Amino acid sequence: MSKTIITIGRQFGAGGRELGRKLADKLNIAYYDKEIIDSVAALSGLSKDYIAENDEVVTNSFLYSLVMGTRTLTGQKTVEEIKMDAQREALLEIAKKGSSVIIGRAADYILREEKPFRVFVFSDEETRVERVCRRDGLSREDAEKKIRKMDKLRSAYYNEYTDAAWGRADTYDLCMNLSRFRMDQAIEMITMNYK
Amino acid sequence: MSKTIITIGRQFGAGGRELGRKLADKLNIAYYDKEIIDSVAALSGLSKDYIAENDEVVTNSFLYSLVMGTRTLTGQKTVEEIKMDAQREALLEIAKKGSSVIIGRAADYILREEKPFRVFVFSDEETRVERVCRRDGLSREDAEKKIRKMDKLRSAYYNEYTDAAWGRADTYDLCMNLSRFRMDQAIEMITMNYK
Repeated sequence: MSKTIITIGRQFGAGGRELGRKLADKLNIAYYDKEIIDSVAALSGLSKDYIAENDEVVTNSFLYSLVMGTRTLTGQKTVEEIKMDAQREALLEIAKKGSSVIIGRAADYILREEKPFRVFVFSDEETRVERVCRRDGLSREDAEKKIRKMDKLRSAYYNEYTDAAWGRADTYDLCMNLSRFRMDQAIEMITMNYK
Repeated sequence: MSKTIITIGRQFGAGGRELGRKLADKLNIAYYDKEIIDSVAALSGLSKDYIAENDEVVTNSFLYSLVMGTRTLTGQKTVEEIKMDAQREALLEIAKKGSSVIIGRAADYILREEKPFRVFVFSDEETRVERVCRRDGLSREDAEKKIRKMDKLRSAYYNEYTDAAWGRADTYDLCMNLSRFRMDQAIEMITMNYK
């Protein structure tokens, strides 16, 4: 297998992280999810807390600067831009190192020159609610709210930084409803691409 | 294998028909694409030519009747409604008969009670253009135009008759970029669901 970059976009609570970890284990390649935060903090000079809080979020300051055109007026980068530049750099470094599975963060788009294999996973509403209740210790109602909110944030973030559409089939190479497959089947479908 | 209904939504020129035929052969089950037109004509009493011309198209008369409310005023069905009722009936009859692969026509939605396995296929722009040039004997420019037009018609049709969105990943169970897989791999991914 030559260098393989697999990106996984995912609905909140659909099981993208679990799939990504198992896939990376199976292929014996690196796995990046929250791990990216440390590099972004180091590259940007911003605190880990700030980066973690604003991970996969378009902050107001960025929208504000776009609308107000403050960046061109002052010639200064906004904090959002510093964060995004560092994230782009972190992803490019990861891709340079070798094969990897990368979760979210518009990596499919940022690394498009590497021709990554782009996966998107989602699942039935009920499966997601159960997972989020269990994993995050939330009531049904709060889990449903969190799912709505997180999907909105991810979608807004992706659509802001790319010229594609989050969750639209033809943005990716393979999209799977994880409620319909066992984990080993999902992994088999992705790795099939490398046979 | 118990009764299996596999529906295939597809971008124009992506290879959905070829995949569907080979899949039906492999599983040794029935295949329906243009074959549906005969049943719809018989059930509706409308001509085959009319049904073929308006296959997967929302005709103006329907939009007109919705906007003008003519249906409730006169109590008469529009031709579009007669066609759609017949198509629904034709699909339900197909599903009753046994396992099948059904191409397009919002079958995933109309047959939702049967819990079909819902596939959507698409492919890279270049692959589609080449296929349409070759298959339909068109120039590049005309092939590109036809692709735009047909996708618009299919999308408008699907979105009119369902409460889901054509081409959005979570409308389906599995979405594949056919430029990235060999035909046998695509078939293997779908049949994997039945093992």
